[in-house]
Amino acid sequence: MSYFTGLRCVHCAREYSTSEVEYYCKDCGYHDGILDVVYDYEAMRKVFNPSSLSRNPNLSMWRYLPLLPVADPSRIPQLQVGWTPLYSAPRLAADLGVAKCWVKDEGRNPTASFKDRASSMGVVKALERKATHITCASTGNAASSLAGFSAASGIAASIFVPARAPEAKVAQLLVFGAQVFSVQGTYDQAWELCMQAAGEFGWYNRNCAINPYLIEGKKTVSLELAEQFMTLTPGSFPDWVVVSVGDGCTIGGVWKGLREMHVLGFIPRLPKILGVQADGCKPFLTAWQDHCDLVLCDANTVADSIAVGHPRNFIKGMRAVTESGGAFVSVSDEQILRSIPLLARKAGVFGEPAGVTGAAGVRKAVESGIIDPSESVAVIVTGNGLKDIQSAIRAAGRPISVRPDMEDVRKAVEVTVS
Amino acid sequence: MSYFTGLRCVHCAREYSTSEVEYYCKDCGYHDGILDVVYDYEAMRKVFNPSSLSRNPNLSMWRYLPLLPVADPSRIPQLQVGWTPLYSAPRLAADLGVAKCWVKDEGRNPTASFKDRASSMGVVKALERKATHITCASTGNAASSLAGFSAASGIAASIFVPARAPEAKVAQLLVFGAQVFSVQGTYDQAWELCMQAAGEFGWYNRNCAINPYLIEGKKTVSLELAEQFMTLTPGSFPDWVVVSVGDGCTIGGVWKGLREMHVLGFIPRLPKILGVQADGCKPFLTAWQDHCDLVLCDANTVADSIAVGHPRNFIKGMRAVTESGGAFVSVSDEQILRSIPLLARKAGVFGEPAGVTGAAGVRKAVESGIIDPSESVAVIVTGNGLKDIQSAIRAAGRPISVRPDMEDVRKAVEVTVS
Repeated sequence: MSYFTGLRCVHCAREYSTSEVEYYCKDCGYHDGILDVVYDYEAMRKVFNPSSLSRNPNLSMWRYLPLLPVADPSRIPQLQVGWTPLYSAPRLAADLGVAKCWVKDEGRNPTASFKDRASSMGVVKALERKATHITCASTGNAASSLAGFSAASGIAASIFVPARAPEAKVAQLLVFGAQVFSVQGTYDQAWELCMQAAGEFGWYNRNCAINPYLIEGKKTVSLELAEQFMTLTPGSFPDWVVVSVGDGCTIGGVWKGLREMHVLGFIPRLPKILGVQADGCKPFLTAWQDHCDLVLCDANTVADSIAVGHPRNFIKGMRAVTESGGAFVSVSDEQILRSIPLLARKAGVFGEPAGVTGAAGVRKAVESGIIDPSESVAVIVTGNGLKDIQSAIRAAGRPISVRPDMEDVRKAVEVTVS
Repeated sequence: MSYFTGLRCVHCAREYSTSEVEYYCKDCGYHDGILDVVYDYEAMRKVFNPSSLSRNPNLSMWRYLPLLPVADPSRIPQLQVGWTPLYSAPRLAADLGVAKCWVKDEGRNPTASFKDRASSMGVVKALERKATHITCASTGNAASSLAGFSAASGIAASIFVPARAPEAKVAQLLVFGAQVFSVQGTYDQAWELCMQAAGEFGWYNRNCAINPYLIEGKKTVSLELAEQFMTLTPGSFPDWVVVSVGDGCTIGGVWKGLREMHVLGFIPRLPKILGVQADGCKPFLTAWQDHCDLVLCDANTVADSIAVGHPRNFIKGMRAVTESGGAFVSVSDEQILRSIPLLARKAGVFGEPAGVTGAAGVRKAVESGIIDPSESVAVIVTGNGLKDIQSAIRAAGRPISVRPDMEDVRKAVEVTVS
């Protein structure tokens, strides 16, 4: 059973029962009034604890059902999401200049990104509402992920992507049968259009920034981190959890999950959160450094998944860093691209640009004195490198073209050796 | 521990100890003398059975260690391979015209294809031989997979691909740091070049067709099928196991794993094997229909992973179908491409062309009277659709381009509804 008791506005703290409100606070509206899902942790800890969890055979994000806002588990799609591998990466740690480094490979999810955790939750909530049509705007991954889970559950999906979304992600959602609108504009314009269409056509709204349930799916990455480290390094937890930041929903979810696992006794202390943005789009970093409110900005970066000039979940994203005593940093596109082969070669994980941005940020944070070389980090790789092959090619070069003749091979091998 | 006792030539049946021979039979040579790995099943069944396996917490292909030729498990790379999801797909079954259909999604492996099972085994054997350099020729997936596992284990890889290999696969292996030879010729020419280079430079040879250990990795897909069906449908097993066929190694591995799980009491009866080739490259089908030896052919198909005109594991591949009482069929490129959105929309699984070829073959086999509509099938999807986006785009079309204006959205929605 779930211990989900209601919703609370992150801006004015007004509380709602689940039937009172669908998406956002009635008083604060959708710009500020993002809702947080509330649970009864006291009741939960009697039945949900390290011992009970170790006996749970479900190896997907749904093993954390008591901590998720699901009324009827029979609606959960069968696509196996979550319980992604966590790898120890000593060679990567040495290269980045930290004591220890672990890599959580979210590219192993069904549609190859972290967003599957949110989309599966979105589809469950849509089915609970008896919705037959669901929509979202996305820079790519949330879109392909929603398309996949909608297909698996047999409901219709209409999806809005900016025209610059990489073709692999667009192809993915067309293959899954979604209706795809390629918006001649920015992600922010695609988002506004999606909001209007959801209202006008009555589609269930899977936009993480206004739908309070989506972040509950996202937080499961931290529930897993907590449980996996309990086995790997009993009694301790990394000093830092590192993730790239676009809309603010992912980092907000990561932080919520960690706080919950701390409250429930799974982890001995809370880590600091490092939020990594791109130099070409860093509204969180700017606001954090200048102690000011959000200032909207342009979005120019190769890391399309975090190219968000108007982050809709600014409050939750900012709190993750301030409450944890962490930091924001930003990295250049060149540093991001260099991190693609770095992670692949040192940890065996091939990430997309936004997926490896966290690792690039670790190096920057070490150089800036934010992370001490004696500290340990867990880096979340949010999406698979196959999602954006053009960036991978920019980063990794071209093969050696040879005739089917050993003479050509010998020449190339000699060049490598000499 | 492993119950691996030696090697036996599939052509002349001569037996070898593991130290006597590296790759192929000394009498028969590498064209015919493919070796089969031999185990002591009688000794094994005392400790390896459904009950012991159900208590094994390792959820990767290495949970079947007693059935694998590994001397020292400490050399196993940490990349989590195998234990891929098996989905029930009733909507796909209805579309293909069979009673029941399950889909095994091999695209969920670390580098997104079935070949990871073989590459991880290859790297373990290379490390056992104290090799520091490994090589293979591949149409793409074995290559990117070997590059990934070599990177994870810190050994060098030199890889030969035909110039027509899709750029996503080539990008993948460059990212992982392999030395990549793009051969101006066919897969068969890339293969010959790789064989020469392995000999000349002393590189460990991870070519499935001559290295007897690779198929042992591949067979683990069937060990998993057996165990997963024991839970899903206790006491029964699908009538058919379906897989696309190129070199013959995959279908050979599938059949070996099934026979082993039958001998060991995990499955009540052996299924029939359906081997599916492309119309543009069907040497197995031709030989099987005409009861003749292998006749080499050209390789013209969109399904690059099975574009093999000279299948090197002809004997094992043919035996899988003849011994099981199964069949070969072939399908057109158009049928293959149509199956990409079909699997995605009906089962939530996005496969590459060769990955969905099995499903296309089921329809063909039903239409030809080979599979009865009352029968059940398990289809192995051998690779992720993100590996070949251009084919996916050919199959799934383009998005609807709209200005950031509801008027454009309304028009498109009206067209869909009317």
